[in-house]
Amino acid sequence: MAQQGTDKITEAEESKARLRLWLRMLKSTRRVEAVLRDRLRSEFDTTLPRFDVMAALARFDTGLKMSALSGVLRVSNGNVTGIVDRLAEDGHVVRVQVPGDRRASMVRLTRKGEEEFARQAAAHEAWIAELLADFDAAEADLLSDRFDAVSHRDET
Amino acid sequence: MAQQGTDKITEAEESKARLRLWLRMLKSTRRVEAVLRDRLRSEFDTTLPRFDVMAALARFDTGLKMSALSGVLRVSNGNVTGIVDRLAEDGHVVRVQVPGDRRASMVRLTRKGEEEFARQAAAHEAWIAELLADFDAAEADLLSDRFDAVSHRDET
Repeated sequence: MAQQGTDKITEAEESKARLRLWLRMLKSTRRVEAVLRDRLRSEFDTTLPRFDVMAALARFDTGLKMSALSGVLRVSNGNVTGIVDRLAEDGHVVRVQVPGDRRASMVRLTRKGEEEFARQAAAHEAWIAELLADFDAAEADLLSDRFDAVSHRDET
Repeated sequence: MAQQGTDKITEAEESKARLRLWLRMLKSTRRVEAVLRDRLRSEFDTTLPRFDVMAALARFDTGLKMSALSGVLRVSNGNVTGIVDRLAEDGHVVRVQVPGDRRASMVRLTRKGEEEFARQAAAHEAWIAELLADFDAAEADLLSDRFDAVSHRDET
């Protein structure tokens, strides 16, 4: 009886501890995103979705189709077309025709876009290093692995 | 010289480790939010912003002003008025007049809304417990404290 009671309390406490962890994770993530958003705006006059699009393009020398870009990003409320239009206006990306497919166009970084993204990415990495300064490399790697489990849980 | 070289590598590695941690945190958070969104939809025919509004209201018996609700939520792309309208249609909240201030109205949960939120909150907690099952209570509490530091870093 007593044992059963103890187990029940433990399970409830475990559940509450996980809920607290989730709420803190969410708060930390939003805090970091808010800082990134502010600094991208003030230091580079750009936005988080624009930075994310450039980051995706930086991984593909030949560029990406618009559809692939939407997929890579999963910008929930992002308007990929609008983001690409703005990056094109700034001379950071160009649209190029897909050989053999007149209706499809690819987007890729220009040389200027590559240089601008290199600057932004270096600043971004330094900001993250500062914001997560409480985690040393070993702890950060350990936690990365632990969170990987969360990302892949219940995936079907 | 050798020592300096070693330090430099370590600093760069630490920075990369923190960047990896950030990307995994972000991925995990988005993954958990996506699961919550799907399940709130399929099991309660509701949305994450509506759930968040009810959670905020559940903490205040006398209700909240619309302005306070926006503040509590910081729903980046949320339209608090639209969310409250929908909750009112469902009979989960009511708008009540603020005594002595004809222009201000408060929003509070109805009895029906309280009961519905109790069910949703219990399910939400169980989903989180399942998604974060890799973290036991002690680890979850430890990490909660670690993330608290991130939330309050650079706050001015």
